Amino acid sequence: MAKELKDLTKRSEDYSKWYNELVVKADLAEQSPVRGCMVIKPYGYAIWEKMQQTLDKMFKETGVQNAYFPLLIPKSFLCREAEHVEGFAKECAVVTHYRLKNAPDGSGVIVDPAAKLEEEFIVRPTSETIIWGTYKNWIHSYRDLPLLINQWANVMRWEMRTRMFLRTSEFLWQEGHCAHATAEESEKRTVQMINVYAEFAEKYMAMPVIIGVKSENERFAGAVNTYTIEAMMQDGKALQSGTSHNLGQNFAKAFDVTFMNKENKPEYVWANSWGVSTRLMGALIMTHSDDNGLVLPPHLAPIQVVIVPIYKNNDQLSEISKAVDPIVAELKKRGISVKYDDADNRRPGFKFADYELKGVPVRLAIGARDLENGTVEIMRRDTLEKETVSLDGIEDRIEKELEDIQNCLYNRALKLRNEHTYVVDSYDEFKEKIENGGFFLAHWDGTVETEERIKEETKATIRCIPLSGEEEEGVCMVTGKPSKRRVIIARAY
Amino acid sequence: MAKELKDLTKRSEDYSKWYNELVVKADLAEQSPVRGCMVIKPYGYAIWEKMQQTLDKMFKETGVQNAYFPLLIPKSFLCREAEHVEGFAKECAVVTHYRLKNAPDGSGVIVDPAAKLEEEFIVRPTSETIIWGTYKNWIHSYRDLPLLINQWANVMRWEMRTRMFLRTSEFLWQEGHCAHATAEESEKRTVQMINVYAEFAEKYMAMPVIIGVKSENERFAGAVNTYTIEAMMQDGKALQSGTSHNLGQNFAKAFDVTFMNKENKPEYVWANSWGVSTRLMGALIMTHSDDNGLVLPPHLAPIQVVIVPIYKNNDQLSEISKAVDPIVAELKKRGISVKYDDADNRRPGFKFADYELKGVPVRLAIGARDLENGTVEIMRRDTLEKETVSLDGIEDRIEKELEDIQNCLYNRALKLRNEHTYVVDSYDEFKEKIENGGFFLAHWDGTVETEERIKEETKATIRCIPLSGEEEEGVCMVTGKPSKRRVIIARAY
Repeated sequence: MAKELKDLTKRSEDYSKWYNELVVKADLAEQSPVRGCMVIKPYGYAIWEKMQQTLDKMFKETGVQNAYFPLLIPKSFLCREAEHVEGFAKECAVVTHYRLKNAPDGSGVIVDPAAKLEEEFIVRPTSETIIWGTYKNWIHSYRDLPLLINQWANVMRWEMRTRMFLRTSEFLWQEGHCAHATAEESEKRTVQMINVYAEFAEKYMAMPVIIGVKSENERFAGAVNTYTIEAMMQDGKALQSGTSHNLGQNFAKAFDVTFMNKENKPEYVWANSWGVSTRLMGALIMTHSDDNGLVLPPHLAPIQVVIVPIYKNNDQLSEISKAVDPIVAELKKRGISVKYDDADNRRPGFKFADYELKGVPVRLAIGARDLENGTVEIMRRDTLEKETVSLDGIEDRIEKELEDIQNCLYNRALKLRNEHTYVVDSYDEFKEKIENGGFFLAHWDGTVETEERIKEETKATIRCIPLSGEEEEGVCMVTGKPSKRRVIIARAY
Repeated sequence: MAKELKDLTKRSEDYSKWYNELVVKADLAEQSPVRGCMVIKPYGYAIWEKMQQTLDKMFKETGVQNAYFPLLIPKSFLCREAEHVEGFAKECAVVTHYRLKNAPDGSGVIVDPAAKLEEEFIVRPTSETIIWGTYKNWIHSYRDLPLLINQWANVMRWEMRTRMFLRTSEFLWQEGHCAHATAEESEKRTVQMINVYAEFAEKYMAMPVIIGVKSENERFAGAVNTYTIEAMMQDGKALQSGTSHNLGQNFAKAFDVTFMNKENKPEYVWANSWGVSTRLMGALIMTHSDDNGLVLPPHLAPIQVVIVPIYKNNDQLSEISKAVDPIVAELKKRGISVKYDDADNRRPGFKFADYELKGVPVRLAIGARDLENGTVEIMRRDTLEKETVSLDGIEDRIEKELEDIQNCLYNRALKLRNEHTYVVDSYDEFKEKIENGGFFLAHWDGTVETEERIKEETKATIRCIPLSGEEEEGVCMVTGKPSKRRVIIARAY
């Protein structure tokens, strides 16, 4: 393990390589034999479970209920909404047969040509179509609205270039699908959910985000409007971390979902959908981790505290354990996840390196001399600072440190973002600076042409029009045409 | 709702129709537009979530960790274990292409023939192959063992005849996949997990089960031995509710997974797998429910207590609410899930019928006169018995009733099973009695021929060789050949 850690590429050398190695070395995930799909390993999955549990609770507090819809989508369903099929048909897994059989020539098992499906199915890339095909039966009157449904599921998009967590052919996510009686109510819910995501990102992931609106070009296929949260990774690139789409009446029209409104007149239902995925794992890793490995915010760390005994013989170990046991019990009582690692097949140095690699927020080390002095060594993963402190009241100290680490990680990330956010008015200046990453607040004339030119010439895209931005008269940095608001431009994952 | 309830078919008229109707009317699930797949509606999903949470906790207490493996299985993987492919190839969804495109003649969207996969993928019917293909990289030494992994996932089997929850093309489940250094340890884990399932069934579902071993014919494809829990439904048919398979070294050999044992010699790894699925929802429904609708055991009821106010005007309602609010608060404090239904768009009678249909274990009704008298009407869903009791100490009473309902449901189901379990020694007697359902303890000569003859002639199958059964000299009721143990024979879902 110590050797593996030493092998971790430094961020400054090759950020991308550092990320790929870290995902594997910290036991989060690995490539599977299925092209573009990953295996999420137990330690990585434990972090995802914490994310899920927290988000699920937050959704339910807003009145959302969970349900489950089929994995397979009839081809005809996908094709009902014109923009939607355009957006998803190019990279999807298609089920065409329902049986294998032994080859007549004995050469092995083949697809049975007699078992061809009349209509092909698509493995869901997202579920708007199958869900709105179902809502048709559920919604008749304004009394059936709003309908606030979420689904935790796997989805599949046949991506050409994949990277673990950031872009995989199959990924895990949640997708919320709400139906409303009015455009206003649906818009309100769309914004509410992007705010839930922002709160989750900042409070639990310790990751500052910018809430904004996507440009027309970057909208979800079939949406009227897409809200996004954008985070800055340590290399200055943006990572879109969650989206919430106001779908207008597009899907209601495509699937003929109407309701009798309060005036007893039929009207198409108003829709929104919103989702976050295992991509958040990538965001979490790239926001906080360092050259020694993962750094996890305490709110999402599967193990928040690890205690490592340092001993020469079993007598010493048993003395140490006697002192540690009540600390473990008290921490658990306080809801803190703690591991006492008294395994004797790894030396303390190996354990230290391993838990650093795994990003455990607080480490205690306690030896025979500590016992004599009534002390313990405490180390914070975020700063790697060690301090010898009294065993007395250690539980309070740990609680305080966890709280502090959570805040410090957020502040550190915010500081980094602020330091790499630039207001620019000159396209030349932009083109020069973008090479080093960062967020650029610039005026844009609002046209797709300019947007595409920027992308072509600089590989940067318009991440969003920030909601917090203020109106400001200006001219597009590229074309000089008038603009009323600055947008955020950055290279992105 | 009251009308819908009246429409529910009676169990005595048509048990099968009663089940299908109940699933839909109680808002648990409905057929989807995808052949053989269901939509699990919020109320049904809430019950499944309670099952998941409970099982997940039980698994983790035995040291199991969750992980996630790919949905798609390369065809060649499925084919590595001969019996396994034989068991699953006949009914599977096959992915052959990765793109759709616009038809050249403008007739719509078609599968792009240029996007044919070199190797087809199967939507997982179960994950032994992909998981053992992965374990090869994870297991090198005895120190890497045991490996105790579980996955919550969707799986797909192209079933010809489907019924909601009981048999659907796609279903949700968990699948545990453990790797061990010795045959003994693996067998021990296999038995441990079937016991976990039995404990869950009896303690949470209030459903008595018989733990036993499957006959060779009924084993999981690729297993050395399959343990099962079998429950009796109200119509006397058996429902296999969970299975745990000792896979020997079959999958380790198929995927060449070896480890260096303590003697530093390479050895194939020992495996087991175990799973329960949304089928448990069907078992739950059919074990307890009645002609008025669902009956849910309190441990799995999303709403355990509902309180319905009966009032003539808003003043009365507000007086009632004043009395109810602290009761709701106290129940929540005790961890009891309670709903105070003061919605004014449905009359109390409708609410009563609805909550009966939904199986809410305890209902309180409180009106103006109750307030004067300091009383409340309490009704138990299992017995439909009403009683007027003092508001004083009502929380204790509710807690007691919930506990009692949980026990009574179990005892009622156990009584039914005992009453319909028969010891038979004559095949003629068996053939006559099986028409009315029930479990039959009979001697069987242990041959596949006899097993298949019984199935052909009576539609009954050998459910299991019960672990609790004792050795007893006897002769097969069909062939007269010697037998040392009675098996359980029944018709089954």
